[in-house]
Amino acid sequence: MKTDRIIPGLKLGNSSKIVLLVMDGLGGLPWPENGLTELEAASTPNLDRLAARSACGLIHPVSPGITPGSGPGHLALFGYDPLEYEIGRGILSALGLGLEVGPGEVAARVNFCTVEGGVVTDRRAGRIPTEVNAELCGLINEKVKVPDLSFTMAPEKEHRAALILRGEDLSDALTDSDPERTGLPPLPVSPREEGDRRAERSAELVNAFLAAVGEVLAEQPKANMILVRGFSGHPSIPSMGERYGLKAAAIATYPMYKGLARLVGMEVLDAGDSFQDEVETLEREWGNHDFFFLHYKKTDSAGEDGDYWRKVACIEEVDSLLPRILTLDPEVLVVTGDHSTPALLRSHSWHPCPLLLASSREIHSGEDAFSERQCARGGLGIFPAVHLMPLMLANAGRLGKFGA
Amino acid sequence: MKTDRIIPGLKLGNSSKIVLLVMDGLGGLPWPENGLTELEAASTPNLDRLAARSACGLIHPVSPGITPGSGPGHLALFGYDPLEYEIGRGILSALGLGLEVGPGEVAARVNFCTVEGGVVTDRRAGRIPTEVNAELCGLINEKVKVPDLSFTMAPEKEHRAALILRGEDLSDALTDSDPERTGLPPLPVSPREEGDRRAERSAELVNAFLAAVGEVLAEQPKANMILVRGFSGHPSIPSMGERYGLKAAAIATYPMYKGLARLVGMEVLDAGDSFQDEVETLEREWGNHDFFFLHYKKTDSAGEDGDYWRKVACIEEVDSLLPRILTLDPEVLVVTGDHSTPALLRSHSWHPCPLLLASSREIHSGEDAFSERQCARGGLGIFPAVHLMPLMLANAGRLGKFGA
Repeated sequence: MKTDRIIPGLKLGNSSKIVLLVMDGLGGLPWPENGLTELEAASTPNLDRLAARSACGLIHPVSPGITPGSGPGHLALFGYDPLEYEIGRGILSALGLGLEVGPGEVAARVNFCTVEGGVVTDRRAGRIPTEVNAELCGLINEKVKVPDLSFTMAPEKEHRAALILRGEDLSDALTDSDPERTGLPPLPVSPREEGDRRAERSAELVNAFLAAVGEVLAEQPKANMILVRGFSGHPSIPSMGERYGLKAAAIATYPMYKGLARLVGMEVLDAGDSFQDEVETLEREWGNHDFFFLHYKKTDSAGEDGDYWRKVACIEEVDSLLPRILTLDPEVLVVTGDHSTPALLRSHSWHPCPLLLASSREIHSGEDAFSERQCARGGLGIFPAVHLMPLMLANAGRLGKFGA
Repeated sequence: MKTDRIIPGLKLGNSSKIVLLVMDGLGGLPWPENGLTELEAASTPNLDRLAARSACGLIHPVSPGITPGSGPGHLALFGYDPLEYEIGRGILSALGLGLEVGPGEVAARVNFCTVEGGVVTDRRAGRIPTEVNAELCGLINEKVKVPDLSFTMAPEKEHRAALILRGEDLSDALTDSDPERTGLPPLPVSPREEGDRRAERSAELVNAFLAAVGEVLAEQPKANMILVRGFSGHPSIPSMGERYGLKAAAIATYPMYKGLARLVGMEVLDAGDSFQDEVETLEREWGNHDFFFLHYKKTDSAGEDGDYWRKVACIEEVDSLLPRILTLDPEVLVVTGDHSTPALLRSHSWHPCPLLLASSREIHSGEDAFSERQCARGGLGIFPAVHLMPLMLANAGRLGKFGA
């Protein structure tokens, strides 16, 4: 996005507060039984009253038709063009496990697999139980030794794990070892581009690591090898402090969102487990930060499970606690999602997300409810999510004039 | 903007007329007393009738959240991406004084200041009266001599002035001499980038000029030095003739807007002082041009003064003269602003500007009034202002098909 270039030069400091409340996967689709989206079916008196005095619209995380993952969805909300700043899958996996990936470190996704006669016979090792996964990760962490390389294997669910590599001048420009189908041997990891000496050295270290893992797991009955993919280093992203002059804080209960917030330089607050804990954290920390990213996960989980009514109830839970946020009287309060997760589709989707921006400096177009259909007619229109951050900053009086 | 590349190849000639009526700072915000924007409160029977047979929308001068100055606001209306074509502050100051800055010339903004014991003690020289400013400019223009450099100092208000430099192969890639706080000596002007020989030579000339100014002003009681900043040369902008095949004319009463129009190759017509004079100019010159940029300044001034009701009255003044423009029967008539200036904020703002496009080749979505809220629901939607020019050309039958 071209405006990226000018934003840092326009930033102004003041004492205003901005709250960005993200209900993960908020947007939905009409449910066949009642013809209403989750947001339309939910009883949300507080959000509806707020919508009536807010500017509303719809935001596209990336662009029409593009279904985003959590990474691009959140980057866009934080004002970083998700087509410009990509967060590798390895990094996201590691963040999702609460692991920190520092500059210079490289992360990758791991599958435990089964190899027989030199070829992969099961890319998921029969979906080993998570406990077995954890034991095998422990074994690798303890027994595998590679000169000039240190590492951490951390279990996810079933056959999935994350790997973080540390060494001098490591490169993430590496190909996968996963052959992506059975009947083939695991591939040696190679530099993505020929002649990249740094990646060549890194590939040698990774291949030595993989060989050592093969030896350590050789006699294991369930999974005797690992496949690695999605090597990615810590992305180079300017912090929200540098870019917007904000002292930003994240209030989230899930590791991945804390990790994403940390990547853009937010301070991650100790937020407890429930949304009520999050709101209490917001109240407690109100004086210490300018910008609060408040993340609510359960709308997305319910959508992914195809559980329409649970998603409705989740939205109602947030609505019931909204008055406590309003009592803090932020200059700018935004309620939106990082993407849509319609229960009907049981997955993330490409539909633009409803957006409500409460500020005394916008025109209120008089929507009497907060919903996808009302937002589609809202005064803010339908626009790329990456523009939301400048809009919040402007409403908070934190963005000066461009040009004379 | 990517379409820039294709527009010149699509231009068609015909005898159609386009009128772009810009009410500076037109967009507003609801006033607390009545909940209406300036445009909503104004009695505008002619604009409302026109809106009912126009296509309406909202335009973002730059992008959501970005508050533009007059330069970017107008460039976008003329179809030039304001993030691509930047007009330096020095140039805009000079244009605002009615000075012409030709190719090869360099302009800068000037403050008269007070220096004691080698350091700046007042960056504004106690805001000297404009008459003193004018005298000092005259003194400098008369007495200061620098080999290979000629120049013009022109007074603005109080301590502010503009400087235009002329010499062989001058560069504008120069740093400011303004130290931006008191207690420091004025800075020597330097090249912005090391090793830029052309800028080095220009910096030497400017520093010689500044030294000579210091000598001439040494005994002045009120201001004994100047600080310069915002060096900028004539921007390289293709003319509206080259780009769109238009014979374009500007009808404006304020120097800055005449200057902006001249930068994009418009002929600046003698437009008198009032809006009535402007409309008479339009009538008189109707046969001589294809495109008329009609600029009305007073809406912006009233907004900047926070004078809601004066802004309302200004809008009504324009409305009352609209029938005379309509009588000329242009193929395309656009009424909009270069940005919003809500009286509530007493300044330019980021809010998109109401737009009305009267043409027999658009769908009329049946808005029954011209206002921010009606335009937000208009058939043209909310879009970047830079797309307005192609839209006007298309409606005038002046833009051919792209691709086969």
